[in-house]
Amino acid sequence: MCSNCDYTIHGRHFHYGWDNTNVPAERVAPGSTIFFECHDSSGGQLTAGSTVEDVSTLDFGKINPVTGPIYVEGAEPGDALKVTIEEFKPSGFGWTANIPGFGLLADQFKDPALTLWKYDPETLEPSAFGTHGRVPLKPFAGTIGVAPAEMGHHSVVPPRRVGGNLDIRDLAAGTTLYLPVEVAGALFSVGDTHAAQGDGEVCGTAIESPMNVVLKLDLVKDARLKMPRFTTPGPVTRHLDIKGYEVTTGIGTDLMEGARAAVTDMVELLASRYNLNPVDAYMLVSTCGDLRISEIVDMPNWVVSFYFPRCVFE
Amino acid sequence: MCSNCDYTIHGRHFHYGWDNTNVPAERVAPGSTIFFECHDSSGGQLTAGSTVEDVSTLDFGKINPVTGPIYVEGAEPGDALKVTIEEFKPSGFGWTANIPGFGLLADQFKDPALTLWKYDPETLEPSAFGTHGRVPLKPFAGTIGVAPAEMGHHSVVPPRRVGGNLDIRDLAAGTTLYLPVEVAGALFSVGDTHAAQGDGEVCGTAIESPMNVVLKLDLVKDARLKMPRFTTPGPVTRHLDIKGYEVTTGIGTDLMEGARAAVTDMVELLASRYNLNPVDAYMLVSTCGDLRISEIVDMPNWVVSFYFPRCVFE
Repeated sequence: MCSNCDYTIHGRHFHYGWDNTNVPAERVAPGSTIFFECHDSSGGQLTAGSTVEDVSTLDFGKINPVTGPIYVEGAEPGDALKVTIEEFKPSGFGWTANIPGFGLLADQFKDPALTLWKYDPETLEPSAFGTHGRVPLKPFAGTIGVAPAEMGHHSVVPPRRVGGNLDIRDLAAGTTLYLPVEVAGALFSVGDTHAAQGDGEVCGTAIESPMNVVLKLDLVKDARLKMPRFTTPGPVTRHLDIKGYEVTTGIGTDLMEGARAAVTDMVELLASRYNLNPVDAYMLVSTCGDLRISEIVDMPNWVVSFYFPRCVFE
Repeated sequence: MCSNCDYTIHGRHFHYGWDNTNVPAERVAPGSTIFFECHDSSGGQLTAGSTVEDVSTLDFGKINPVTGPIYVEGAEPGDALKVTIEEFKPSGFGWTANIPGFGLLADQFKDPALTLWKYDPETLEPSAFGTHGRVPLKPFAGTIGVAPAEMGHHSVVPPRRVGGNLDIRDLAAGTTLYLPVEVAGALFSVGDTHAAQGDGEVCGTAIESPMNVVLKLDLVKDARLKMPRFTTPGPVTRHLDIKGYEVTTGIGTDLMEGARAAVTDMVELLASRYNLNPVDAYMLVSTCGDLRISEIVDMPNWVVSFYFPRCVFE
């Protein structure tokens, strides 16, 4: 619960996918602060007692339930919904999976795999990975968005102009996110909370973790945003950058192939150096490694780099 | 000059493009420390007295002269050249240009433009941009590589497996770079020094700045690298992250289009907020804004984000 919130949206108010005819869970005035009970991306299908078999039998019709929607009074198409991300209340449990057919290297990693995480929700100390890895945590909401103008039901998987499954790891406490409003009331929802993720979310999952969230919703009238944008209050990588990075590169004419090459090389490097099962290295780097575009102008070859924080093992 | 170096390679020992028949400027033993006099990417065509007209008449046959090559005794194909980047000795002068036909938004910015920079080479204090911007500096070598096995002359513009025009802004002092060796002696060269650049180098140029460099060259026998990789000794963004970031996004099925959308939005945001000429905003963000791939797995839409450090204006 939240002592200073105007509303609490309980976990039973969730929906699968986006549809602008969903009935609002609440109608609020701009400026309201709201406590959301959020589900993990499996919607509770994976728990601390799960095994890899449960990954094989995941019901994809029930992934990424989001809590909401919230109708914001006065919101109209062309406005921006200003979302101030105030606080996360993590659960202490998380999971990372390799889901066949999903992820940047799905062609290399065809079998299901599962890593379970337990972390201290108060201190958010780095979370143990295997025998000697420790992954720094930074909770954020993977899916955060408003309803699209286009009628009908829309899959929750792809993010869109109106946000949704953005999986931007800096949508953490303190960040202010601006989302383009496409329908009256905006119809805001949030979920798919993560305890940690690197830029790219390369294996397809992060440290997926049920978590509650406190947000403030406000309006910027007639902002006419083309796409979501956000402002961070301070540095975004200091939880993990202290020992620097191990970096692999992919160089060529295609950014996607460059990303795949850089991540493949990092998985091989870590698997070899730390005697890890390659799929475990793949899941690990998804939780803390960052895909960056180092150069995108030196025709015809671009450089995509994958940054793995050395503090995990050193 | 460098009191502890084994060799000095003077600026007259430069070459345009890569060719494994270039005559070595020096033959050195593994473990040698070398002082390189490096040219800026215009090879002196642009100076503190240049105007935008000089951008229009740039001779592209003379860009990115690199100092070298160095023949490293014992280097053979399959080895890695281990390059320890020890120190930069900056000049205090730099330039950033929009060169027609070159850059991520070449279709939007068709006219030449030029920004000249003057900075303190000792303190490396942030460098003034316009009336109230200040860009944090972090010198690095834009072009650093070895000769390709393929015979003939190869343009300096695209980076390759053997490195070259990588334009990776974290190839700064303290970083160790590993390059795949493809020919006997490796034939290492370096140049195209930059006083500052963001990930992407989006307008096509950084703060291009003549600078001297101290490097140590060593070998890792039979390393069998697929691509260059590197290790940073510590954090890579602390010179500019203290006030956080303003971030724009591009969401869609193509990473290149996502990058273009995110940078376009940032240029518009900064031009509007700080009353800048759009092409000036475009050149500015190339020197300090970072392209990151926030997610690359939520089929079919990927998120590319462009991070602009707020400390430049705040």
